[in-house]
Amino acid sequence: MPLTPTPADKFSFGLWTVGYNGTDPFGGPTRADLDVVHVVEKLAEAGAYGLTFHDDDLFPFGSTDEVRDSQISRLRGALDATGLVVPMVTTNLFSAPVFKDGGFTSNDRDVRRFALRKVLRNLDLAASLGAETFVMWGGREGAEYDSAKDIRQALERYREAVNLLGDYVTDKGYNIRFAIEPKPNEPRGDILLPTVGHALAFIETLERPELVGVNPEVGHEQMAGLNFAAGIAQALYQGKLFHIDLNGQRGIKYDQDLVFGHGDLQNAFALVDLLENGGPNGGQTYTGPRHFDYKPSRTEDETGVWESAAANMRTYLLLKERAAAFRADPEVQEALAASRVDELSTNTLGEGETYDDFLADRSAYEDFDANAYFNGKGFGFVRLQQLALEHLMGARG
Amino acid sequence: MPLTPTPADKFSFGLWTVGYNGTDPFGGPTRADLDVVHVVEKLAEAGAYGLTFHDDDLFPFGSTDEVRDSQISRLRGALDATGLVVPMVTTNLFSAPVFKDGGFTSNDRDVRRFALRKVLRNLDLAASLGAETFVMWGGREGAEYDSAKDIRQALERYREAVNLLGDYVTDKGYNIRFAIEPKPNEPRGDILLPTVGHALAFIETLERPELVGVNPEVGHEQMAGLNFAAGIAQALYQGKLFHIDLNGQRGIKYDQDLVFGHGDLQNAFALVDLLENGGPNGGQTYTGPRHFDYKPSRTEDETGVWESAAANMRTYLLLKERAAAFRADPEVQEALAASRVDELSTNTLGEGETYDDFLADRSAYEDFDANAYFNGKGFGFVRLQQLALEHLMGARG
Amino acid sequence: MPLTPTPADKFSFGLWTVGYNGTDPFGGPTRADLDVVHVVEKLAEAGAYGLTFHDDDLFPFGSTDEVRDSQISRLRGALDATGLVVPMVTTNLFSAPVFKDGGFTSNDRDVRRFALRKVLRNLDLAASLGAETFVMWGGREGAEYDSAKDIRQALERYREAVNLLGDYVTDKGYNIRFAIEPKPNEPRGDILLPTVGHALAFIETLERPELVGVNPEVGHEQMAGLNFAAGIAQALYQGKLFHIDLNGQRGIKYDQDLVFGHGDLQNAFALVDLLENGGPNGGQTYTGPRHFDYKPSRTEDETGVWESAAANMRTYLLLKERAAAFRADPEVQEALAASRVDELSTNTLGEGETYDDFLADRSAYEDFDANAYFNGKGFGFVRLQQLALEHLMGARG
Amino acid sequence: MPLTPTPADKFSFGLWTVGYNGTDPFGGPTRADLDVVHVVEKLAEAGAYGLTFHDDDLFPFGSTDEVRDSQISRLRGALDATGLVVPMVTTNLFSAPVFKDGGFTSNDRDVRRFALRKVLRNLDLAASLGAETFVMWGGREGAEYDSAKDIRQALERYREAVNLLGDYVTDKGYNIRFAIEPKPNEPRGDILLPTVGHALAFIETLERPELVGVNPEVGHEQMAGLNFAAGIAQALYQGKLFHIDLNGQRGIKYDQDLVFGHGDLQNAFALVDLLENGGPNGGQTYTGPRHFDYKPSRTEDETGVWESAAANMRTYLLLKERAAAFRADPEVQEALAASRVDELSTNTLGEGETYDDFLADRSAYEDFDANAYFNGKGFGFVRLQQLALEHLMGARG
Repeated sequence: MPLTPTPADKFSFGLWTVGYNGTDPFGGPTRADLDVVHVVEKLAEAGAYGLTFHDDDLFPFGSTDEVRDSQISRLRGALDATGLVVPMVTTNLFSAPVFKDGGFTSNDRDVRRFALRKVLRNLDLAASLGAETFVMWGGREGAEYDSAKDIRQALERYREAVNLLGDYVTDKGYNIRFAIEPKPNEPRGDILLPTVGHALAFIETLERPELVGVNPEVGHEQMAGLNFAAGIAQALYQGKLFHIDLNGQRGIKYDQDLVFGHGDLQNAFALVDLLENGGPNGGQTYTGPRHFDYKPSRTEDETGVWESAAANMRTYLLLKERAAAFRADPEVQEALAASRVDELSTNTLGEGETYDDFLADRSAYEDFDANAYFNGKGFGFVRLQQLALEHLMGARG
Repeated sequence: MPLTPTPADKFSFGLWTVGYNGTDPFGGPTRADLDVVHVVEKLAEAGAYGLTFHDDDLFPFGSTDEVRDSQISRLRGALDATGLVVPMVTTNLFSAPVFKDGGFTSNDRDVRRFALRKVLRNLDLAASLGAETFVMWGGREGAEYDSAKDIRQALERYREAVNLLGDYVTDKGYNIRFAIEPKPNEPRGDILLPTVGHALAFIETLERPELVGVNPEVGHEQMAGLNFAAGIAQALYQGKLFHIDLNGQRGIKYDQDLVFGHGDLQNAFALVDLLENGGPNGGQTYTGPRHFDYKPSRTEDETGVWESAAANMRTYLLLKERAAAFRADPEVQEALAASRVDELSTNTLGEGETYDDFLADRSAYEDFDANAYFNGKGFGFVRLQQLALEHLMGARG
Repeated sequence: MPLTPTPADKFSFGLWTVGYNGTDPFGGPTRADLDVVHVVEKLAEAGAYGLTFHDDDLFPFGSTDEVRDSQISRLRGALDATGLVVPMVTTNLFSAPVFKDGGFTSNDRDVRRFALRKVLRNLDLAASLGAETFVMWGGREGAEYDSAKDIRQALERYREAVNLLGDYVTDKGYNIRFAIEPKPNEPRGDILLPTVGHALAFIETLERPELVGVNPEVGHEQMAGLNFAAGIAQALYQGKLFHIDLNGQRGIKYDQDLVFGHGDLQNAFALVDLLENGGPNGGQTYTGPRHFDYKPSRTEDETGVWESAAANMRTYLLLKERAAAFRADPEVQEALAASRVDELSTNTLGEGETYDDFLADRSAYEDFDANAYFNGKGFGFVRLQQLALEHLMGARG
Repeated sequence: MPLTPTPADKFSFGLWTVGYNGTDPFGGPTRADLDVVHVVEKLAEAGAYGLTFHDDDLFPFGSTDEVRDSQISRLRGALDATGLVVPMVTTNLFSAPVFKDGGFTSNDRDVRRFALRKVLRNLDLAASLGAETFVMWGGREGAEYDSAKDIRQALERYREAVNLLGDYVTDKGYNIRFAIEPKPNEPRGDILLPTVGHALAFIETLERPELVGVNPEVGHEQMAGLNFAAGIAQALYQGKLFHIDLNGQRGIKYDQDLVFGHGDLQNAFALVDLLENGGPNGGQTYTGPRHFDYKPSRTEDETGVWESAAANMRTYLLLKERAAAFRADPEVQEALAASRVDELSTNTLGEGETYDDFLADRSAYEDFDANAYFNGKGFGFVRLQQLALEHLMGARG
């Protein structure tokens, strides 16, 4: 299997990712800003497929229309020249001081109105660039103190905003769907819609739930100690995996945004297996962009930036190769069967079996030998895990 | 405000809570088992309102019908004698070896059938005791290894089971609703439906979503580093807070099940304020049982068991008293207004304002002074938090 | 007990704390920088005792000697005018790009030499201002990737640096001791000497261990899920609590630097009890500065800055008042005795008892009734905790 | 490199590990107990080198001398028959009710005396079996509530106990050293000596520090979010890595005791590289037993037990093979040099350079170009990490 990325792999990068200048809570930039045209050229050269951005990445907050138009035009030129596409756009509602208490859910109504206008303007841009997904990361929608934020009203205002955006794209005929990106905390003490689950639940309260899905990020779920691959499986189950942010995180701590695979490697293997092969029993796979939302380490210079970008793609392709070998191995197939992984696809009740039939089936309860599960009927999960590990390590054939 | 609990406070306890014998992963029991009649008498004496139980708490797994009937009858007698009620019942699908890979979602179909039958039988008992809530904690529904469990099929089997239970109670005319209790991990490495959010989202996929809500537990959400009061607010927002488990947890670690308030005290204060007063801006409160799902520390003898039971109730009442004083304090009201906490209840768009009107409002965007939020327009959240802290500490009047 | 701070309370603040401009990983400043003279005046007015600073807080990295001297002189003037003192000084080896891989332990030897010179220069300044403690927070001494840093060589270089500093202050006759400030992670993926324990252990490898202690920070230990009060007790036990950083943290996540008490309130109560009263059984207390290393929330304007500064001091004084009442309560004394907390001060072996005597004491083993601890001999810890909680809440008399 | 374990690999297992019967906080045993003779035979067959045990693993707490002697004799017979050795012994001071508040540091002096006697008796057994290491895991030495335990007195009692044990083995001429095993929490809310660092620091307070080292466990440090390989490096630096417990843990949660490598695989790779090759720059390696302290998953029957035992050893050997290839790869060597990993071995000051010389070296400070580190002088750490990852995955050559 080829490990050299091509646009067919649908790898995309945020402008803010390779463009990260190294600023963190304890230090300023270690790298100069990168020009968007240069970024597009380098990504194209590296085999990427798409570029994504926040409005403020392309033209600084508060830019004049001239600056804005010029930057958009330069971006268009670079896309035309390279063939890169813009599959996703997002809006920055978190960096400027005006958003210090959030955008859609700031306690200050004037801020909420400003935020919504900023998003509407950016939606027009997104549509004009052909983006099909509009991501909403509400990083400042939250609080440090419980009495400072009425969560139910915050959800109500968030709902109001998304409903309006849904009306807008529908009326305008934009081919755009929305993807909410959850995060548990940082920069706020607690953030609204902290996990994939909370976002999926919220979506069901919307007027146009079909327009809205999730954009889960590896590190964000892992900051809550959650199994990312399992969360993605639920998002797929509910038909809501509209986009995905790949990166690396080493446990429950600050948001690290490491290269994909440089965090929890075993869960990354399970994730790629799920996205590419549909997981243990097959099933619907993910066909959207493989989007890297990572930060090149602050210790690196520009050479390191491009090496890190390449590392994301190469690691993904390596994992894809290993997942394919895992699925193809007859011993794995045998072990999966022994662990009855496939048996979970069988309905618990028989075809046409009513609960009355079921209650009458003595073999299901009265005559069932529950004791056989003591010191017997092992599931063989450790063997299966070891096979997965050895495939991940390239240690089988 | 009286700090002595009465049944009007609706405090309930699990039979397994005060009955916990001290077994943990590194040691066996330190206390003898308690008889259910004794428990009911002691709880009634202490001012509690209800008792809840798993089937296996009342009669051991695998009991003969005689033992089962006798225990049920003894329980009924004690309830009659004391006036205690059984507002909630739940089923143990996690202790016996047969459930080592779960109940509703075990890879083994025979186990799933057995589990479902065990629940149906227990539903009949719950109904006969007048319980209105049936809790489902799927502690063994999960996996340690990603390839061992097809999450989507697990969700599908869980859905099949809950749909069948919904049909059953509907057909039987039982006045029972279901409440899913999420937990991120322990005893499984990762558990299905790990947070309130994931459970709320799953409920929307059911055939009878109106019959199913959540039973969030303080410690379970805090084991994922999530803000419990915020999660409860979302559950209330979505109309799904059917039951609640109160206890204490000191951060992200094993499930501690401490006395309510013996964990994160500030979040407990916010929680009681939310349940009793509807949170910062008022709103729908919670009227169901205040259910303690805790464990008396293993270091205690039976005296300590009853002191810990009393501590749960007294702490709740103290927090309720402090929350009332917080809401009544004019300085707090003034600070809330200064922080614009109430302004979040105002719609972002004006009444009847269309998005065209909104886009035409230059004051919202083009003429809006975003710079005024630099070095000005502070939200005053720290002052508000300090006022909350001082009320919690009884340090204001 | 008075709740108005005075210099006798020995409250000190970092210039970078009240001076924090709101920059975080997802946004720039929300407040203008504060002038040092203004800060000194405001702190004096608020009842503080001391100001602390990093070199780069007072004069920007790379300042000319003129700028540096002028700023030092302005600081001296303000100190003279207000009576504030400078009990501690520290050096910034983490913000400038040159320190991107650390200072004392950068892989780049030229950087290490530069860092050490920067510290030596700042030591002279510290001594000239009468500071008695020199804090070393090695926030960039660490790595994101295991192969990027040889930890043993890093410890060896750190040791070389501290040994040289020890020689220097000794030879110069400076009345200065060093305090290492541990932190587990952020801004590096993993930081050298991640906890109080690791720092205490490292100190024993130094040539002049008596000159070096620790400066533990509430949030830093809690970011590793550790009990801060327990860590401080061990530092006191080893005679190494040379300084302390007070703030608030809500669990395992990014470094929050909240106001003291706005995090884990119960552990803050235990901490103040330990610092002021020596903990459960009394013992050596802490007499150094009560130093707040916190950040006024980014949502606040300058009014909020000073309210947050006041909140730190007031909360400390409130907790001190509550701890005194807790110790004075006869019921608490009785409960402590029932829990045998004081019995831990008695030697396990009797006076003059040899191990041969001990082995011959049949009452200690052969005739000892271990079974009495089943269902009996409870420790009463929950009652004790409830008493502590109620004192913390001001709910007892 | 052979992947079949032999005694030369020095793999050892606790009797309680393969013997784990599946009991956890939410369920009883799923497997029958294993007889010690059977365990010794199976381990020998699998290529292991040693067996370790707690007293209570071999003969139940409270056994008569007859039972005890018989079990010891049966163990000896099995060792003789198979050639397996007992490199380490430890004492159970945590399971029986008498230890509910700890052993060496129980508030109850009678318990402390009983605990110490139990340990002395087990030391005699350890010596008679030729064990060279005596591990002390103080799992119950701790508290849930801050006022329930005087930490300084607990340290003092722990110190008294270890001093007495040191005298005892010295006087008896036993060839035994002690290894303290830290753990942050579980089963107690907070445990004394929570990390490797705290234990290393405590050791320096002992009368015979040379007799006492640490026995770090992978999962225990990772339960505090700490980098295990980095902690081991500090233990080696301080000459205190007397023993090691290998297993797997997936982040900050309950103690999982998974198979080695089934947790954080990248850190396991760094660990094996450190133990076998001395880490990035070489250095003292670890020559003691590679001891697995894990639990076969509760879902498994006895077949799974032995497969999991084999998986531990095979994963270790695979990682050893990959670490050797990593070190041997010229591109890795080149990348390490580019990242200046080796430069950290060079003293910061030159040979014979005094601080006066150093202060006079203008190239070190005044003329040093700190600005060159902005947008230049990248460290190349991401490239190095990617090389490590690819070696771990067997993806290079």
